[in-house]
Amino acid sequence: MYPENHPETRLAALGYSLLPAHPGVGMYVSWARTGNLVTTSFQFPWRDGKLAYTGRVGAEVSTEQAVDAARLAALAGLAQLKEAAGGDLARVRLVRLDGHVGCAMDFKDIPHVLNGASELLTKVLGVAHCRTALGHMVMPLDSPVMLGFLAEINDAPA
Amino acid sequence: MYPENHPETRLAALGYSLLPAHPGVGMYVSWARTGNLVTTSFQFPWRDGKLAYTGRVGAEVSTEQAVDAARLAALAGLAQLKEAAGGDLARVRLVRLDGHVGCAMDFKDIPHVLNGASELLTKVLGVAHCRTALGHMVMPLDSPVMLGFLAEINDAPA
Amino acid sequence: MYPENHPETRLAALGYSLLPAHPGVGMYVSWARTGNLVTTSFQFPWRDGKLAYTGRVGAEVSTEQAVDAARLAALAGLAQLKEAAGGDLARVRLVRLDGHVGCAMDFKDIPHVLNGASELLTKVLGVAHCRTALGHMVMPLDSPVMLGFLAEINDAPA
Repeated sequence: MYPENHPETRLAALGYSLLPAHPGVGMYVSWARTGNLVTTSFQFPWRDGKLAYTGRVGAEVSTEQAVDAARLAALAGLAQLKEAAGGDLARVRLVRLDGHVGCAMDFKDIPHVLNGASELLTKVLGVAHCRTALGHMVMPLDSPVMLGFLAEINDAPA
Repeated sequence: MYPENHPETRLAALGYSLLPAHPGVGMYVSWARTGNLVTTSFQFPWRDGKLAYTGRVGAEVSTEQAVDAARLAALAGLAQLKEAAGGDLARVRLVRLDGHVGCAMDFKDIPHVLNGASELLTKVLGVAHCRTALGHMVMPLDSPVMLGFLAEINDAPA
Repeated sequence: MYPENHPETRLAALGYSLLPAHPGVGMYVSWARTGNLVTTSFQFPWRDGKLAYTGRVGAEVSTEQAVDAARLAALAGLAQLKEAAGGDLARVRLVRLDGHVGCAMDFKDIPHVLNGASELLTKVLGVAHCRTALGHMVMPLDSPVMLGFLAEINDAPA
């Protein structure tokens, strides 16, 4: 059982649970630590072992589906950060979220899609992060959302 | 009054002044510090509370306007870094500038646009930085330029 | 002569040699160090002083050529990291590779292209890295591949 103010408790209260950290899709690892910083490879919206959505927002994928994809990719990232922190999310402080959205040429609402991830991450980890946001015509695996994470690991949690 | 060799003095000599650091456009903060590193959310070419330009370089926006947008986004970034450094730009050493340019499919001169930012930042901060440069068909807020900053904060300035 | 397990020995065994670190293409430097971290500007597939390939993968550039471009950009990056490590690649641990591929709208195999770089870097440096991957319609210098490097420098090599 986790204490009341633990990120895992907040995650469960929101109705989410983490899958095991997904391995990289290629010749690389999912995260790397240097000093007390952890950086991840891009995280995808996995569900049941495959991408929950494929295609571009504003074309094959609706805005609502893209927001859900952002949440799923955020959960995938939390699983990586948990692993990097030796299994304890309370040791993780998210520094920056790098958000990438596959979108149609005329899609305008990239920040709204990524807020799906930021809202979840802020609620679970309890601290605001900074964020970058980009839209793309072509995405690896044809994913509508990919997220990169830069986090600080506190070896002696408060 | 700032000493002669202070970044604020050089900024004023170039005819620029900083606006207050702009808050994030979404559920995130504008910068985050980890150790003595500061990373920012993307900075936009703000003027009088709105984007000075919107659209793609090589289409709705001219190269000259895009260079100006890069300068404005650089000033927005300096305001964030100044805030992160407790108000003293002399404590800031820029490590990397991440430049993003919204451009038409056949636009070739991304480095020239970003040199508008790099020239200003090098003159003001007095040290060269490294830089990444990308072009995009779709940009958040339809901005022609966005800049990300990675900087070192020296708590005991020379 | 380098010892048997040195990155330079593995590089030579693979039939590669490093060119001098290429200067930045614009008003910036090729790498910057902060603490024991080094970050680079984007690296291009240089050969004989010019880009070995230009154009988009899936259009003007074949997948096989793009894999070769990724290898060349990886070698360009190793030259930068070697310089940043005072000339000794054994002091370099690659943390993250940021891969950018210029591609046609319907090109699907971005990870395969970047594996050309990751395979070489893993063989030479002896440790896996994490990686980000993006596709773009427009690339600086019309390069099919650009790579960014984040590495740790160990001042006291093992």
